[in-house]
Amino acid sequence: MTIDALSATFAALADPTRRAILARLTKGDASVQELAEPFDMSLPAISKHLKVLERAGLVSRGRDAQRRPCRIEASPLEEATEWMERYRRFWEGSFDRLDDYLREMKTKTPKKKERKNARKS
Amino acid sequence: MTIDALSATFAALADPTRRAILARLTKGDASVQELAEPFDMSLPAISKHLKVLERAGLVSRGRDAQRRPCRIEASPLEEATEWMERYRRFWEGSFDRLDDYLREMKTKTPKKKERKNARKS
Repeated sequence: MTIDALSATFAALADPTRRAILARLTKGDASVQELAEPFDMSLPAISKHLKVLERAGLVSRGRDAQRRPCRIEASPLEEATEWMERYRRFWEGSFDRLDDYLREMKTKTPKKKERKNARKS
Repeated sequence: MTIDALSATFAALADPTRRAILARLTKGDASVQELAEPFDMSLPAISKHLKVLERAGLVSRGRDAQRRPCRIEASPLEEATEWMERYRRFWEGSFDRLDDYLREMKTKTPKKKERKNARKS
């Protein structure tokens, strides 16, 4: 089974260590050794996480044979954010509906008739 | 190990069937049977996906004992989008850098000396 790009991106992000690696790389390129330092992890464990990030296209490796520095490649996050944005009206919508309800309760409680008319305007 | 909320959200989204279920639920609440129809999948397989979405807080179940309709709960996507937004400058930045480079190539190719000076300004 081939994994689609969006699934690979989300799977790569579903781990706090991998998200922390990306956060570290926003400060500049780093070797695997440099990345391993702040985490209490072995180099092979960090390398494994890096491979997941690389496969998702979120990290690229430099050509310097000794260091092969890691670099963040954020463009897959753009596609993922676009996907999420489609749902924005759902998370904003629920608050809007609550806002509308509270506003209506506040201003239109006096008379039943008024409330009916206000809804039409 | 407890999985943090953000990891649970990303893990839930890392599957095309689960993303399709969410897309279907934007059109209205649906029972497990209704959700299973468009997918060539057994009810237990769909139920398994729904459990992942429920655990991530992306789907809630109604109280109607017979149907227990599924509803989309988009708020975890808000947190995930906020996390991604932090990286926006990186995916926008990379295009900016490419743009700058191409512009520089176009206007400053004539003389080596000029190109050197341009870099300083």
